[in-house]
Formats: sequence, structure tokens, C-alpha cells
Amino acid sequence: MRPTTGWQSLDPATNALTRVTIERREPRPDDVAVRIDYCGVCHSDLHRIHGLLGEKDLVPGHEATGTVTATGTAVTGLSVGDRVAIGTIVDSCGECAMCAVGQENYCYDRPTTTYGGTDRVDGTPTLGAYSREYVLREKFAFPLPDGLDPAAAAPLLCAGISVWEPLRAAGVGPGTRVAVAGLGGLGHLAVKLAAALGADVTVLSRSAAKERDARSLGAGGLLVTGDEERVAAARGRFDLVLDTIPGEHDLAPLLGLLGLDGTLCVLGNPLLTGPQLWALGAGRKKLTSSGTGGVRQTVEMLGFCAEHGITADVEVLPSAEVGTALTRLAAGDVRYRLVLDLSDLDAPAA
Amino acid sequence: MRPTTGWQSLDPATNALTRVTIERREPRPDDVAVRIDYCGVCHSDLHRIHGLLGEKDLVPGHEATGTVTATGTAVTGLSVGDRVAIGTIVDSCGECAMCAVGQENYCYDRPTTTYGGTDRVDGTPTLGAYSREYVLREKFAFPLPDGLDPAAAAPLLCAGISVWEPLRAAGVGPGTRVAVAGLGGLGHLAVKLAAALGADVTVLSRSAAKERDARSLGAGGLLVTGDEERVAAARGRFDLVLDTIPGEHDLAPLLGLLGLDGTLCVLGNPLLTGPQLWALGAGRKKLTSSGTGGVRQTVEMLGFCAEHGITADVEVLPSAEVGTALTRLAAGDVRYRLVLDLSDLDAPAA
Repeated sequence: MRPTTGWQSLDPATNALTRVTIERREPRPDDVAVRIDYCGVCHSDLHRIHGLLGEKDLVPGHEATGTVTATGTAVTGLSVGDRVAIGTIVDSCGECAMCAVGQENYCYDRPTTTYGGTDRVDGTPTLGAYSREYVLREKFAFPLPDGLDPAAAAPLLCAGISVWEPLRAAGVGPGTRVAVAGLGGLGHLAVKLAAALGADVTVLSRSAAKERDARSLGAGGLLVTGDEERVAAARGRFDLVLDTIPGEHDLAPLLGLLGLDGTLCVLGNPLLTGPQLWALGAGRKKLTSSGTGGVRQTVEMLGFCAEHGITADVEVLPSAEVGTALTRLAAGDVRYRLVLDLSDLDAPAA
Repeated sequence: MRPTTGWQSLDPATNALTRVTIERREPRPDDVAVRIDYCGVCHSDLHRIHGLLGEKDLVPGHEATGTVTATGTAVTGLSVGDRVAIGTIVDSCGECAMCAVGQENYCYDRPTTTYGGTDRVDGTPTLGAYSREYVLREKFAFPLPDGLDPAAAAPLLCAGISVWEPLRAAGVGPGTRVAVAGLGGLGHLAVKLAAALGADVTVLSRSAAKERDARSLGAGGLLVTGDEERVAAARGRFDLVLDTIPGEHDLAPLLGLLGLDGTLCVLGNPLLTGPQLWALGAGRKKLTSSGTGGVRQTVEMLGFCAEHGITADVEVLPSAEVGTALTRLAAGDVRYRLVLDLSDLDAPAA
């Protein structure tokens, strides 16, 4: 076994994580070992630390970049020293209809999540990338294209792919009218990616003060959701509304902004309940959601981001400040993604 | 004014309607007067008679066929003696984004419904086609193509168009895998239309006894929804599930049958509430609904039905039996649509 250091949640009542020694497996033939350099702090980390899924003793972290330090005997696509990225899943059955079309994220036998999951070979719990090393199947370690800053690229692996897949599924391209509700980790990347795909992007926000930021990210404008007159005038304006708002909120105003056959994709809060069906019937509106991404689309997204110079806007903190990072995220004090620098784990604990 | 005879609901507690004399307007320049020959009995008639929308004194009926008996001075497309069909709406604003694309059914200024609405010119309440004459704008009186039996074609104007639009919106064609849940007025036409569009159609039913009927309508087979093993084996099998079940029911099993990016279109019960969003997220499934159809698509559907010899399977009753018809519909004792023959209104009341 390979001992390494990570940050573990031992008390679901607090954001304070504990520095612990964890064991990684020796690479199996199709495994690589990765030194984790950066890991983004995702809203779902916060939910799961606080028991949303009834989990305990989590080592969170599922949007990371790092460097290959060892390879299994059957690894052919990666070498020691390669820069790689790790996302929300690290394995899947490989045989079901979803795996067959490269949507391992929807594996019928449940994908193995990067943390809080169970390894398909040895049955051990998976521990996440808030740690200095990770060992995983080569298939799920994505080569990080040249030119992408590893700290700013880390959030592409969850926040980025989570908005990329629904943008692509909706066929977003030149002329598509896209609205993005919520300008956080997912939202700011949705604006960048949709704009780079050629769409006409509008940010929906409670605050007019975000208009400058929205435009700098690539949006054509901002619609203040509390401005009833402008909202009424925008009725039917959008083909796709990407809703990245994390809390409770009413979907009716977002549905009202959709045109005929438009789609509301709710990403920020999967626990929201859909409206009565008649609210969708008036205009054949579609309600959908999406969950991160598969291997094929992750590779595609990383290539697109490299080509268009897209990464997250991040603030990098030493991993020892993980508790502060989680508390700031819960308070919404983030522009637009906090990323942990795991290199401080090489030094002895303070 | 033009007196005519119709069937009115004077007591929302009963299905018994009362034979009354009602007044139709003299045709305005763009109006036609239509002798109603046949009118289908729709589930929504039943709901509305019993106060779903808080209406009173309704003369129901919104899927009818008849013969033009008079034309306004500006009518150019119809002549006395022409066979026409009348659907769920008889006017719209003509100016909004929805009217502009031929979706008058979603008019932002509310389409004028065939009954229970308010005429846009004189402000009088609209009275439906359970009556011997109707007067309406030429634009909303559809020429009935040759070869379509007028009694069996009447249900195309609500049941038919209600399933036609979502089939077309979903791009159903050769190779599309369509499931139809509920084999009533809408469901049996959905099977016929989807099969004629080239789709691979499966009926979802609680009863295996309907398999023969399903196949005779054009379905490739029937999946018994209570057969857990076969339902599990059918996971992800369909691109589109059209749900025409009128009562309360769980959407989760229907969502489970959808493949990646599949669509569940709920038509039978618009008061159902959608599931939590995560249930849609696993596989990017889309939940939608739809409400009858616009002028353009109604014309298209009637042409398609004439070309493919499609009408509803109907049982024709004298209009005096309307109360019995409503009670049988409420009990599900219909294969697959009851249609009133209004000619009995020419005789004096019994």
C-alpha cells in the first residue's frame, strides 16, 4: 500500500476537516498513481460532508489536476510525468448501454464515484482528491491539454463538464439563445463555454451589479430577475435556461422565459421538484437535469477549453485552509471557484 | 342572431346535460356558420363540466365536424356545403410570437377556447359544439380532407392533434422508439399516428389482455407495467414515452424506460407534479407536456391522416345520449372514442 496524506470529514456538523494519513493501493495493471496538485472545492462536497447522502468519514474532492507518478504494467496512454485531470467518477461497469455510448456517468450499475464510492475490484471505499495522491484506472485519468493552467483547469472536471454536457445535449451553437441563472462555479463556466460555442448568452441575476462581470465572462447582457417589466418583456426569449442556483427557488419564472420547445435544465439543486405538468404544456417546454459527464465528452470539453483558452476563474488556497474554503463557499463568498493547492501536504503537519 | 339547439351543463354535480336553445351570432365578414354533424366526447369535457376550471353553464364540445351553411362577406377559402372540422380553439390574438409561428394554441394573449372562452370581438361567452350550429372565424374551420369519415375524424381535432404535436416536436420517424401509456382516446390515436410515422411503437398497459388491440392499432408489442422483470429488461429502451393516463400515477417507472436524452411527455393529467430533478438528471431525461395544436399543424395532421387512412375508432351515439356518454367515459367504458351525432337536434325535444 501507498500511504499519503489527505483531509477527512470526521464530524458532519462542521466544515473543519482533519489531516489524516490514508492508504492508496499499489497500481493495478490498468492503474496510474497521480500526485494531486490542485483540487477544486465543489458545492456538492459541502452537501455530502453535511450528510446529504448519509455518508461518513469522507475524504472529499472530485475535480483535480496532478501529475502521473507511477503506471501499472498494462498502461499504454500515460507516462510518469504526464499532467492529468481527475473528475467525479473513477470507474464504471463498462458493459451497460450507458457505458457503451461513453456516458459512464450514467452507468446502470452505478459509476464508482471518486469519493464516497466503492472500488469495483477490492471493495474498499473510495477516498477523494483532497489528498496528495490518488490511484485510479487510466481510463478515468484525462490528459490535461497543454496551455491549461492546472489550478484553473481543476474545476473543469466537475463544474465545467456539468454545464458542458447539457449545453451540447441542447445543441447550443451560433444563434442559440442561452440564459444562465446563478453566477457561481457552474454558472461562470456555463457563460464562458456557451459564449465560446457561439451562443447569445444572458445572465439571470437578482443583482444588476453583476452585469459587468457577466459581460466580462462573455455574456451579451444581464436580466435582473426582480425587474418585472423587463422579465415580462423577455417572455419566450430563450431556447435554453441553465439553472445553477443552489438553493430553493421557484422554477415558474424561468419557464416563462423559455420559447416554444425551450428547455430548462436544472443543475444547481437536484432536490427541487418539478412544477405541475400544465406549466410545461403551455409552449411544450422541457424540464431536464444532468449529472457531470462521461469520458468521451470530458475529453472533448478539455480539448475545446484548450482551443478557446477557457478555465475557471479561481482563487487558490493552501489545502490546510480547506475549512475556511468550505465555510466561504457556504456563504457564497467565492468568485468563482476555490481551489486547494495540495503541495502543503508534503510538509509535516503544523 | 341565429337560434340553434345544444346541450348545456346546468349542474356540475351530474353528467346529465339539458337541451337548450342558444343564440349564435350572424357571421361576421371573416366568419363561417357550420352545421355540426358530429362531436367527440373528450375527457376534458368531463373535467370541466365538473368544475375543474370553475366554469358554469357550459355547452361543451371541441372536436367536431360539420358542413358550412353560410359564409361572411370576406371569406375566401370556404364555401357553403364544404365539410369542415372544428377543434379546441376558435381565435387568438394573431400578433404574438406564438401566433406568428402558427402555434395559436399557445397565444400569449390566451387563445379563445371553443367553449368556456370569451369572444374577442363581442365579449360573449363561447358555447361549444355539443350543438347543431357553430359560428367561427374561417381561419379556425379546417377543411376536412376527402376520404375521412366525418364521425371518426371528429376526435382528430382534440385527441389527434394533442398527440400529433408532441410526436412531431420529438422528431418521431422511422426507427424512433415510442411507448404509449394508456390506450384511450389519445393513446389509440398516438399508436396509429406514431406507427404511420414509421416509429417502433410499444403500448404500456397494466393488462396483457390489450396486446391484441395494441397490435391491431399498429404497435409492435405491449409491455405489461406490472411485470417487474420485463420492465427492468426494458430500461432505457424508449426515445419518447407519451403518457396519456388520465388519473394519478407515478412517473418514475415511465422515466426508467427512457434512454439517454429521452423525453417523457405527459398529456393525460396536466395536474400531475414533476419528480425531483435528480430523477431527470440520471440520463438527461426530459419531462414535457403539450396542449392541443396550432392551425399549421392541424392542417398538416389532417392531410397526414387522409393520406394514411387514419381516423379514431369511434362509437357514435345520438346526442340525446350525451349523459350516458359522459358517464361511460368516466368509467373507462369506451373503445376508443364516443362521438355524438347531432342530427337528432333537428327533431323537436322528446
